[in-house]
Amino acid sequence: MVEGRHWLPGQDMADVAWKLVAVNLSDLAAKGAEPLGVLIGHTLGDGDARFIEGLREVLETYGVPLLGGDTVGGHGARTLGCTALGRASHCPVPSRAGAQPGDRVYVTGTLGLAMLGFEALRDRTGADSTAYRRPAPRLAEGRALAPIVTAMMDISDGLLLDAWRLAEASGVTLAIDGNDVPVADAARRRECLSWGDDYELLFTAPAGIALPVEAHRVGAVETRGQTPLSLDGEPLRRAEGLGYQHS
Amino acid sequence: MVEGRHWLPGQDMADVAWKLVAVNLSDLAAKGAEPLGVLIGHTLGDGDARFIEGLREVLETYGVPLLGGDTVGGHGARTLGCTALGRASHCPVPSRAGAQPGDRVYVTGTLGLAMLGFEALRDRTGADSTAYRRPAPRLAEGRALAPIVTAMMDISDGLLLDAWRLAEASGVTLAIDGNDVPVADAARRRECLSWGDDYELLFTAPAGIALPVEAHRVGAVETRGQTPLSLDGEPLRRAEGLGYQHS
Repeated sequence: MVEGRHWLPGQDMADVAWKLVAVNLSDLAAKGAEPLGVLIGHTLGDGDARFIEGLREVLETYGVPLLGGDTVGGHGARTLGCTALGRASHCPVPSRAGAQPGDRVYVTGTLGLAMLGFEALRDRTGADSTAYRRPAPRLAEGRALAPIVTAMMDISDGLLLDAWRLAEASGVTLAIDGNDVPVADAARRRECLSWGDDYELLFTAPAGIALPVEAHRVGAVETRGQTPLSLDGEPLRRAEGLGYQHS
Repeated sequence: MVEGRHWLPGQDMADVAWKLVAVNLSDLAAKGAEPLGVLIGHTLGDGDARFIEGLREVLETYGVPLLGGDTVGGHGARTLGCTALGRASHCPVPSRAGAQPGDRVYVTGTLGLAMLGFEALRDRTGADSTAYRRPAPRLAEGRALAPIVTAMMDISDGLLLDAWRLAEASGVTLAIDGNDVPVADAARRRECLSWGDDYELLFTAPAGIALPVEAHRVGAVETRGQTPLSLDGEPLRRAEGLGYQHS
């Protein structure tokens, strides 16, 4: 995570520490893995005491030990790294590549909460910014889902972009019904589908299977058409603009 | 590793990639561990093609797979991270804390080569800078030594400072004979003992034991005296100035 890119300058470093670990645990969640520990690559700087406090909080919350890491002196924008180690709870480990035509598409939770939280924090509105500052990795859900999904990933860069990637990896088309997606702000539905940072799970599962966790059906898997993704029946032709693109 | 701190601005990014991985493999070497793979946290920027080339070279040289990682867009000084995973080849895993009075102190290789290499690179003298650019982790030596050492670490911050740390961890005094240390430049012996980046192994072993690898005896372990370290019979009172201090 890079200062000014993944967190706002001046943000409480306890929240930054939480998010640094949580987003990595979210990757384990998407694999149905049980966390074994984390290693932190920390650039020293302002707010280190708060960073340590947030680190302790997130590790205690998820029962994950700090195994090691490194600290470096830095200058300019700080970069923080985290490696999370986990053990798969189910074999085969869920991948992005297993979605089959006829499967259904699901998401956990509500999308757009992180967007609203980010705006509250940026604009100092006083509204709740927890979802942006302290995302909750879906570890229990990921483990429960691992045996029944055909493909799974966490939504870090926005539902539409991540759905595009899952479809590409699986060689299928995902047909998303935008109105079926639970969003934090219905008036800004499309933004909620494109903004990342929610760290909910996106997965596909065969029709007729009972889900072990709460999730919303938001679409269907089809044989590969002209494009990997359609939204409300409209094929989306380019990945650009669908979500957060790493540059 | 931070640009301008751990590598020279404008340095070949293939060398930077090599060193990023090699110094982490060196930590595994000090534990007698066999590398299982590495994860790279890469800040995108100039020389990325060369970075990938150097990464491929170091991974092929040591037979280590790239397991994953992350890339981020950055600005300003770049930060690169590496997590190396390994499996211990001997239990207990060598630590810094096991040196016993009566043990002998050893180092592998020659110290100061990285210092000379750094100066050659910085001053563009044309002299060989390989030792600084492409350190060779002592993986085979570490595995061979793990069953017989009482304490072991790699020398990343200079022999004297790292010996101080090993002595502190073990609750003993290390008495180093500076003249017994193989150095790259005898006229600058003290500098060679304080300059880091050589990634040789420093270890202690009981007297009378046959070493499975080539190493030089450079001192003895004594019961803890006034200070954790003495050089040529002179107690050293402070860690400051003994080597490279992370700030």
